[in-house]
Amino acid sequence: MDSTTMLYEFADRIAAAVTFDYGSNHNARECKCAEASCRRLGIEWICIPLEFMKRYFRSALLDGPGAIPLGDDYNAENMAATVVPFRNGIMLSIAAGLAQSLGLTTVMLANHSGDHHIYPDCRPAFVSAMNSAISEGTGEKVVLEAPYTHLTKNEIAIRGAKIGVDYSLTYSCYCGGERHCGRCATCRERAEALAAAGLPVDCLPLADDHASDTTPTAQA
Amino acid sequence: MDSTTMLYEFADRIAAAVTFDYGSNHNARECKCAEASCRRLGIEWICIPLEFMKRYFRSALLDGPGAIPLGDDYNAENMAATVVPFRNGIMLSIAAGLAQSLGLTTVMLANHSGDHHIYPDCRPAFVSAMNSAISEGTGEKVVLEAPYTHLTKNEIAIRGAKIGVDYSLTYSCYCGGERHCGRCATCRERAEALAAAGLPVDCLPLADDHASDTTPTAQA
Repeated sequence: MDSTTMLYEFADRIAAAVTFDYGSNHNARECKCAEASCRRLGIEWICIPLEFMKRYFRSALLDGPGAIPLGDDYNAENMAATVVPFRNGIMLSIAAGLAQSLGLTTVMLANHSGDHHIYPDCRPAFVSAMNSAISEGTGEKVVLEAPYTHLTKNEIAIRGAKIGVDYSLTYSCYCGGERHCGRCATCRERAEALAAAGLPVDCLPLADDHASDTTPTAQA
Repeated sequence: MDSTTMLYEFADRIAAAVTFDYGSNHNARECKCAEASCRRLGIEWICIPLEFMKRYFRSALLDGPGAIPLGDDYNAENMAATVVPFRNGIMLSIAAGLAQSLGLTTVMLANHSGDHHIYPDCRPAFVSAMNSAISEGTGEKVVLEAPYTHLTKNEIAIRGAKIGVDYSLTYSCYCGGERHCGRCATCRERAEALAAAGLPVDCLPLADDHASDTTPTAQA
C-alpha cells in the first residue's frame, strides 16, 4: 500500500520501480501487483531476486505461513520475529547502485511511522544515516528520499484515496495466501488504513475467526 | 590481497567470510582463492552470487577483459570506468544482514587508502556513514570495522608478509585471465606491494610488453 501510494504520488518523477523478491511468503503476489501498477502508470518495473536471503537469513517472514504471528499472538515480541535483518539497507543499497548505473539521482523509500517501533531499518535515524552512506558511497551522485517517514499508514491511505490509488492492485498479507488472511499484523494495519480512508476493506477476517465475537445482539 | 591479509590477521575473531560473485572478470578466480584461504584457516566460507549486478550495472569491470584500461590508458578518468556503483555499500549491507541472522556482531571490510581517490565507497567518510547506517538499521546489533582504511596497499602487504599470508592464494587481475596480466591497474598495485614486502612478484608484465624497455645496455 505504502510503496504503491508513493508510486502514484510521484509518478512524474519516477523513472523505474524495483521490487525485490527475497523469498518471503508474500513476495510472489507483491511482485504481480507491483508490475500491474507500474504498467498502468507507464513506469519501468524491475524485479531483482535475492535468493541468498531465503537461504541464509533468519526471519518468520521467510519460514512459511505457519511462522507468522496471528491474532492473540500479535505482540511486540512475536512481531520482532518478522524482522528481516537489515532488509531495507540491502534493498536501498542495490537501488542506489542501480540508480547510479542508470544515471538517476534519487532513491525513494515508502517507510512510515507505524513501522518505527518494530523495524529499526524504517526509523528516521536509519534513513538519515543511509542517505549519508549512499551519498558518500556514490560520490554524491545519488541521494535517498523517504517522503512518508513521519506519516502513519492511515494518513498514507487517506492521501492515496484522494489521488485515486487502486489498492486492489496491492497485496499486504504476511501469510501470502490467495486472499488476505485478515489476522496477521499487516492485514490488521491494512484494514484499519483502508477504513480510515473510507475505502472498501478487502482483508476482513474470515467468518470462522469472528465466530466467537458474533453474539445474537450484534446480529440483531 | 587486502581481504586475505585481514582474514589471516583477524582469523581468531572471524566466524565466516563472504565472497560476492557479482559477475566481474576476476570473480571466479577470486572465489577459488578465497575458498582455499578459508579452508586453510578453518573459517566458514560463504559465496553469494549477485547476478543482478552483471545484468543491470554499468562498469568496465563487468564488460569483459577488453573493457579494462591497460598500460598507457591507465589514468584517473579511465580508472573511474572500473567503479562498480555502490559495490561496497551493497556487499556490506548484505554482510550486515547475514551477520545479524547468524548472531554475529561485526562486519569487516579491508578497504585501503590507495583506493580513496578513485572509489568513493572505499573512503573514510563512506565507512563512517555506512557504520552508522548498519548500526541504526540493525537496532545496534551489528557494527562495521575497517582496520586498513588508513594503510596503503604496500603497508598491508608488509604486514601480511610478517604474519605469513600466502599470497599465492590471492588473485587480483581485473582482466580475469589464467595468469595476472601485469598491465591493469590492480596488477601494477599488486606488483608494487609484493615488491615492497620483499615477496616474489607473480604479476610481472609479459615479455612482449617489456620489449621496448630492453636496451642492449640493460642486457649487458
